[in-house]
Amino acid sequence: MALSEFEIISTYFNKSGLIPDERHKSFVPLGIGDDCALLAIPEGKQLAISMDVLVADIHFPHLADPTLIAQRALAVNLSDLAAMGAAPLAFTLGLTMPTVDESWLSAFSEGLSHSAQKYNCPLVGGDMSKGPLSIAIQAHGSVATGKALQRSGAKVGDKIYVTGALGAARMALDMFDKTLSTLTEADESILRQAYYQPEPRLETASACLGIASAAIDLSDGLLADLGHIAKRSDVGMIIEADKIPVSVVAQKVIGKEKALQYALGGGDDYELALTVPEQQIERFALVTAQAGIPLTYIGHVIEGSGVSCRDGAGNELDLTETGYQHF
Amino acid sequence: MALSEFEIISTYFNKSGLIPDERHKSFVPLGIGDDCALLAIPEGKQLAISMDVLVADIHFPHLADPTLIAQRALAVNLSDLAAMGAAPLAFTLGLTMPTVDESWLSAFSEGLSHSAQKYNCPLVGGDMSKGPLSIAIQAHGSVATGKALQRSGAKVGDKIYVTGALGAARMALDMFDKTLSTLTEADESILRQAYYQPEPRLETASACLGIASAAIDLSDGLLADLGHIAKRSDVGMIIEADKIPVSVVAQKVIGKEKALQYALGGGDDYELALTVPEQQIERFALVTAQAGIPLTYIGHVIEGSGVSCRDGAGNELDLTETGYQHF
Repeated sequence: MALSEFEIISTYFNKSGLIPDERHKSFVPLGIGDDCALLAIPEGKQLAISMDVLVADIHFPHLADPTLIAQRALAVNLSDLAAMGAAPLAFTLGLTMPTVDESWLSAFSEGLSHSAQKYNCPLVGGDMSKGPLSIAIQAHGSVATGKALQRSGAKVGDKIYVTGALGAARMALDMFDKTLSTLTEADESILRQAYYQPEPRLETASACLGIASAAIDLSDGLLADLGHIAKRSDVGMIIEADKIPVSVVAQKVIGKEKALQYALGGGDDYELALTVPEQQIERFALVTAQAGIPLTYIGHVIEGSGVSCRDGAGNELDLTETGYQHF
Repeated sequence: MALSEFEIISTYFNKSGLIPDERHKSFVPLGIGDDCALLAIPEGKQLAISMDVLVADIHFPHLADPTLIAQRALAVNLSDLAAMGAAPLAFTLGLTMPTVDESWLSAFSEGLSHSAQKYNCPLVGGDMSKGPLSIAIQAHGSVATGKALQRSGAKVGDKIYVTGALGAARMALDMFDKTLSTLTEADESILRQAYYQPEPRLETASACLGIASAAIDLSDGLLADLGHIAKRSDVGMIIEADKIPVSVVAQKVIGKEKALQYALGGGDDYELALTVPEQQIERFALVTAQAGIPLTYIGHVIEGSGVSCRDGAGNELDLTETGYQHF
């Protein structure tokens, strides 16, 4: 007989490493097993919440390694916390699957445990049911009251920075679709990791609280996501194409031009883009260097609206691929 | 061309009545439109969170009225807050649908708006994507620190009470499956309402903070849900079958015996079951009478484990239908 919801939870999810322990007691008074979980938000902090739903064959191939799916599902939510400068507290999970597949559940909960421990963010509740394979995760974080990095804070003259390198996650989709010519094992591994194990830039953003004027995590694609900041801040932006940190593997395998396109419009990078006021640049350089965060200057904020991108000669690029569409 | 995620949100979800307004400003500093929403938890309160996922054709017929689906989806989550004695603050929504169906979205957001206003619980964020029709809602509430009604608090000698009447929601499933003989229009309306518009017992539970020893909302079925309290509290329970408040319509249409079965094991009632210590009964009777809450005594807590049910002559009933299985 198939396991019941309660048996699944107790076997695969109510286990040490994944659920709260002594270290979390002060802010998780009650975890899995009641009608609600209870969280205690530290004094002087606000709660930051973000929910992402990942659907099989829309957001990940349904035959993908469940350990990797779990890691990606949690990472993309923690990336939203990072974009606000919030520190992780706990997460909830809404999981639906067509049948009780114990080997899938075992590998999935392994991946979740790994990430929960890595980011000190335990599972405190959720729901589980029969349905198409789909994973809803809500991440909960805390951020000093009034200090969260919002999309609306960019000002004319601010400089624009981005963490890490862009384009590899989009290229991984080509690899999954087998539309790439032969790759080395090392390249494959880099692409797979870029897609499934993005590194939420939690330290970057919390180090930049009170320094950066706005931030966003790159899920839809650099230009589309910068467009969200521009819109909410009522400003325009100019990006310098030759400054953009494009994935080295992407440049090597698909050539510079297509790699740049993927970096601009591909999405799924889960790096951060930040805007920083001129007078904060020195402090910004100091704290990010101390934290060992790879950051690249890519452009600046102007009056107007929208995001334009220029090549080394100052010519505006014609951009066709402008970000992930959810429908 | 189909609407993008951003257009859908701004057209159907980012609208007054559904999103936070001036009244919510003190505890919702930031709603829809950024990487995270921000909540400010009032001093001396803890955050209570509950997530439920409703999947088309598992938890509701996919052709059902979207307004009703929305109301049910929010109500079942608020019912979990009620079961802890928490007051609603805000909710998040993860919605996946196969194609952008604007008339469905319009009706669905209508229903959400209605319930958000009724329960003073605005939409503050979430996610939306292509996928099988599925609705993940997380409700956020606040409850005085250390006062939440938990499943683990029942003690031997406590009396057991239940709100409202039971069995009609289960019977509604028969109506949807067309396995019921002819019903009057009034009966149909009562059954439909029982299923789609359950009334989260928010006042009941908050009135019982510091009085009841444990509480749970009835989603899996009375016996199964009392079983959850018994297990977490390490006690047993005896229920008196002839005291159970069985839906009048159910008794009329399917007969007393089957109606009792539905009341015991049917689920989806979203009434509350509470355990109350002997010395609190007087206060309990007073506050619940003042609040006009329909409450019925149905049994008591004993040493041991499990939940047994006795008829008027004291004979133990043989129970076959013991609650909703999620798989």
